[in-house]
Amino acid sequence: MPRPVSSVLTDFGLSDHFVGTMKGVMLRICPGAQIVDISHEVAPYEVTEAAFVLAQAYRFFPRKTVHVVVIDPGVGTSRRPILAEAAGQYFIAPDNGVLSMIYGQEKHKVRVITAAKYFLKPLSQTFHGRDVFAPVAAHVAKGLAPARLGKPIDDYLRLRFERPTRTARRGWTGSILKADHFGNLVTNFPAADFPGLHERPFEMTVGLQQVTRLARSYADCRPGELILIEGSSGYYEVSASQGSAAKALGCGVGAPVELRIL
Amino acid sequence: MPRPVSSVLTDFGLSDHFVGTMKGVMLRICPGAQIVDISHEVAPYEVTEAAFVLAQAYRFFPRKTVHVVVIDPGVGTSRRPILAEAAGQYFIAPDNGVLSMIYGQEKHKVRVITAAKYFLKPLSQTFHGRDVFAPVAAHVAKGLAPARLGKPIDDYLRLRFERPTRTARRGWTGSILKADHFGNLVTNFPAADFPGLHERPFEMTVGLQQVTRLARSYADCRPGELILIEGSSGYYEVSASQGSAAKALGCGVGAPVELRIL
Amino acid sequence: MPRPVSSVLTDFGLSDHFVGTMKGVMLRICPGAQIVDISHEVAPYEVTEAAFVLAQAYRFFPRKTVHVVVIDPGVGTSRRPILAEAAGQYFIAPDNGVLSMIYGQEKHKVRVITAAKYFLKPLSQTFHGRDVFAPVAAHVAKGLAPARLGKPIDDYLRLRFERPTRTARRGWTGSILKADHFGNLVTNFPAADFPGLHERPFEMTVGLQQVTRLARSYADCRPGELILIEGSSGYYEVSASQGSAAKALGCGVGAPVELRIL
Repeated sequence: MPRPVSSVLTDFGLSDHFVGTMKGVMLRICPGAQIVDISHEVAPYEVTEAAFVLAQAYRFFPRKTVHVVVIDPGVGTSRRPILAEAAGQYFIAPDNGVLSMIYGQEKHKVRVITAAKYFLKPLSQTFHGRDVFAPVAAHVAKGLAPARLGKPIDDYLRLRFERPTRTARRGWTGSILKADHFGNLVTNFPAADFPGLHERPFEMTVGLQQVTRLARSYADCRPGELILIEGSSGYYEVSASQGSAAKALGCGVGAPVELRIL
Repeated sequence: MPRPVSSVLTDFGLSDHFVGTMKGVMLRICPGAQIVDISHEVAPYEVTEAAFVLAQAYRFFPRKTVHVVVIDPGVGTSRRPILAEAAGQYFIAPDNGVLSMIYGQEKHKVRVITAAKYFLKPLSQTFHGRDVFAPVAAHVAKGLAPARLGKPIDDYLRLRFERPTRTARRGWTGSILKADHFGNLVTNFPAADFPGLHERPFEMTVGLQQVTRLARSYADCRPGELILIEGSSGYYEVSASQGSAAKALGCGVGAPVELRIL
Repeated sequence: MPRPVSSVLTDFGLSDHFVGTMKGVMLRICPGAQIVDISHEVAPYEVTEAAFVLAQAYRFFPRKTVHVVVIDPGVGTSRRPILAEAAGQYFIAPDNGVLSMIYGQEKHKVRVITAAKYFLKPLSQTFHGRDVFAPVAAHVAKGLAPARLGKPIDDYLRLRFERPTRTARRGWTGSILKADHFGNLVTNFPAADFPGLHERPFEMTVGLQQVTRLARSYADCRPGELILIEGSSGYYEVSASQGSAAKALGCGVGAPVELRIL
């Protein structure tokens, strides 16, 4: 029998006990769980960045994977814990929009988690990763039916940041979803939606600079040259060959991006 | 049969092969082991910080978990490797005080590890995580009785830092146990021991500033306001709502904390 | 039946989805895999550093471990993916020299990976860790015979950096293989090849300074003193007791090292 797989995505960093403690909680409830880290170095409270990271990873995981997402600036307030079912997998998170890209890509069903008997006691005000999300995830990994956790809801929070908005006949404004470890800037322009960039001249403005060339691969450009490339993410990414576009442009997550097709 | 669980806590960082190598050693001896990281980013040689991190995590792990703790400034000297049994779990560490908070919270039995036949050969002078602690832990995870490793001892090192000391009728002096990833400063004032802060005015001095307000949750304060909060750790923590108290106060692990109840 | 073990070594860092996504891919193909991180914080594109880290770790892993190494500055070019068999283990990597130290230490057989049917589709230009290396590794972990992946080759890239070169009767020039988390500078002088340092005066020049003393352990020197020590790596390492030699000397991976035996 395959072991249940669970992924963990947080903004907790790795210098504290937080992530290890969550895994302890999970293994105590579901001893056979295989727990995989997606990342714990999402910028603190950056819901958009976490939504992007999750959306990149989930579709490569096995069916029935239970993803636990704890980017939770509202911990201790009345924001709700939710469970979403989508793509044959489970997503457990605070209802703050961090699952928005899943909602955008998959048929989904969302429940509010109200069954407090699955929470740890005493329930802390500040660490629901340990007291709410980890134990609930482990119970689901172990086979608990989502319906046992709470009722379906329709009024969950959905943020719209995964696509640029049109501002002119040939103009769009979007934003940076992520600056990756290599300094590539992932825009929210899906390559599939902008095939024209392969055929027509364009200007993409990020920070104070313009990118005007679409390259097929990193090898296909001069060192340091700023290029646009179709990333493994499915989005166009701004790269500086053998360097960091993020540093060259002084930009990070949330920075505006303007596209003009000429 | 559930797989044996082992946790690893070190100050090795993640840029070297150290942690991965320890896990290789463990899996070769105990192929079924489930190995969980607590943290590898304890500040180098910071025994107090590691003791706190461990004490926060262990009680959420399953029975029989084998915790391996390698914060070991004395590697290569005559400091002893020890195994402690407490709370139905095992703790393997150098005898430098890093298990002090376990001793303070649980009935415990400590053995000195002398059975060199379980060490790797040749034994290095500088990497006992690989050569001593990892293989011993894996043998225990696999079922080796602690008595096979060495005799019980009473003269293990126990540090006292987990509580403040009283300096006046309404005054105490303590210290910071940890600056967490979000910049919260965890004091060594257990909330349960100082219930009076909920009812009486107080002044807690950390760095050059005073904190005078106890909040129920992060939501319950103005952005940037310095507050005291009962942390998930069970200790009072100094927080700057939506900011870093560690940065605001310029303080970290070991910094002194004064409390006066007015 | 023991679960197949796979290790992962990359320069991807931990802030992106990259490593988690690779693990998702692996678990979908080989649900029972036990996946261990060696490191993901190799300096970007530093093939030499990765080669050293891998060479330190592999020999402590179980037989049949499948090591996946993705330090891949040439992704998207015609550089070949390869599989090496050595020491009863498997190594899957780009053919850019990152396995050189394995070649230097073990009998080995190298194959070029051409069986594209084991790759993910569509194949991205920029993330072969996900699309090529992870799925191939998982198939091998699951039992796929290496011969199914491609033909043996002899013209794989082998770099020579694991030993110093002789420049005089008593003089050698070498380099730094790694600056570790504690600031120790690992040279490429194998201790076993230079036993004379224990008996004769010597001068080792790194950066602008000279190291003239060989210590038995860290305890055996004054705080801050620069010493040479036989590291757990098997190489001589330059250390600053209770401090960082890397900072004291302003040196890192690749820095030249001169040795004169007097």
